[in-house]
Amino acid sequence: MDTPTTGGLRGKRCLITGADGFLGRALSRTARAHGAIVSGFGRRAANSPLDIPWRDGDFADEAALGRALEEQDIVFHLLGSGTPAYAMQASGSNLHNDVKLTVAMLELLQDRPNVTVVFASSGGAIYGVTAKAAVREDHETAPISTYGANKLIIEQYLAIYHRVYGLRYRTLRIANAYGPGQVSTRAQGFVAAAMRAALNGKTLEVWGDGSVVRDYVYVDDVAQAFISAALYDGEPQIFNVGSGRGRSLNEVLEDVAATVGRRCEVAYSHERPIDVPWNVLNADLIRSATGWRPATDWREGLQMTADWLRAAATR
Amino acid sequence: MDTPTTGGLRGKRCLITGADGFLGRALSRTARAHGAIVSGFGRRAANSPLDIPWRDGDFADEAALGRALEEQDIVFHLLGSGTPAYAMQASGSNLHNDVKLTVAMLELLQDRPNVTVVFASSGGAIYGVTAKAAVREDHETAPISTYGANKLIIEQYLAIYHRVYGLRYRTLRIANAYGPGQVSTRAQGFVAAAMRAALNGKTLEVWGDGSVVRDYVYVDDVAQAFISAALYDGEPQIFNVGSGRGRSLNEVLEDVAATVGRRCEVAYSHERPIDVPWNVLNADLIRSATGWRPATDWREGLQMTADWLRAAATR
Repeated sequence: MDTPTTGGLRGKRCLITGADGFLGRALSRTARAHGAIVSGFGRRAANSPLDIPWRDGDFADEAALGRALEEQDIVFHLLGSGTPAYAMQASGSNLHNDVKLTVAMLELLQDRPNVTVVFASSGGAIYGVTAKAAVREDHETAPISTYGANKLIIEQYLAIYHRVYGLRYRTLRIANAYGPGQVSTRAQGFVAAAMRAALNGKTLEVWGDGSVVRDYVYVDDVAQAFISAALYDGEPQIFNVGSGRGRSLNEVLEDVAATVGRRCEVAYSHERPIDVPWNVLNADLIRSATGWRPATDWREGLQMTADWLRAAATR
Repeated sequence: MDTPTTGGLRGKRCLITGADGFLGRALSRTARAHGAIVSGFGRRAANSPLDIPWRDGDFADEAALGRALEEQDIVFHLLGSGTPAYAMQASGSNLHNDVKLTVAMLELLQDRPNVTVVFASSGGAIYGVTAKAAVREDHETAPISTYGANKLIIEQYLAIYHRVYGLRYRTLRIANAYGPGQVSTRAQGFVAAAMRAALNGKTLEVWGDGSVVRDYVYVDDVAQAFISAALYDGEPQIFNVGSGRGRSLNEVLEDVAATVGRRCEVAYSHERPIDVPWNVLNADLIRSATGWRPATDWREGLQMTADWLRAAATR
């Protein structure tokens, strides 16, 4: 297989922005397991389970960010404020927190051509409304939420900084990650929300009639995709990260019920204009370029998520 | 011809952001000539020739912007800080001045569904590198400068606010405007720069070998396109505004020399990574939708530009 890499991750200094988020925590663990020297940056939860050095400072503090970026080989840029629904309600501040501060980071990296930036983009919010087929990276980008638009403009700034200043970057357009460690909210983390509702006998609110189809990918597989992409040294720079398999919300509810042995009540609610009806990613490109593939079987992934939720409930 | 409109511009209250720029001044005059009630907003030159009421306040001042937006029927949004070269050097502040403040404006317009926004986007910076054919609006968007990326994200926010909140908008992807009133700088306004150099016996610096092809459209034709687009009431919302005819910088230099009867010295310089080699717009869509077409003949337009420059020099 054609897999150009810059060598392994061992001894590489990696900064993770948004290290204390769902994906950030999984990536921190995985990168450490690969021998990387990992440090975190961004807001840290008071009870964070992360055992990595933390760079002090807020992402909005450019001086602190500049210090944190010093001596890094790889920046895993996972920081992003919130969800599609939240982004729509607070367009101005999200634009600032996500896009403007990312651009400030790119300006700081302008004369640091040896740093590789791996950006966590969104496979779900970038492509907009698609036909019912797994989309490839060359599919038209037409976000229908400001969350997706912000992801897209960051992708474009990366491409422009690559072209003009030689910035090394990889963009991962990630499907719906699920797995242990996910904090569900009303707006995202459907698997975790459905599982919590089933375990706790609560009613789950579902936007629309449950026919919305999404692509689910296990969190540790996503973490591995970040590492594969960081080590990959060729063209292209944009990779889908997903399972290639679509599941409706109603199918997920069935499988969650089968996993935990209990069905949750569902309250179907009106559709939202920021949800596309169908989103599945074709991830052939990252597979052929780096060998990455979604290794975790869906039902196994659900089982591990349920085990974690049950263990978390008894702690 | 199928030309759905909301009626003429007579009596319509129009706010022009960036009213004191090259396009803004032409649009102010043209809109007034159509009977609109025009007011300006944004930075105003000390010696501005514009004779329209001015809304006090800086675009960065959201409260002032909110007051300026009150009671308007149409917002012609022409405000933008600078040029592709400048945008690249000051990515962070341009993102703030152009994108973030535009998003703040959209938030202010969120519950004003009767206002039509007509946005001055860029036909030259949005499409990126294209084949040597006139591009249509459905061509892939792949800006190679942050200037173009900022225009594109504003286009996307407009589309999202339309989808989610029903915002009425038109986007004009404008080719290289030229004509009387253009202040040439090193970075843009090639026609005016070439003409000034020829008239004043100065040397003109040209990036690259002069083979770069652009689409030139006369300023008053662009002003008319804004009005046609504002009055048009159907789908789609994005229109190219150009001549459909490509001219290399060297061809422009020839035609300028023929117009003013004198040739300028040219110092060819290195190419810039933010310039695409070829950019010509297919404007069939706005023609079929609104009847607009670039009415001014190129050589006539050059002559009027030369007349203005000569008159300005004697004032």
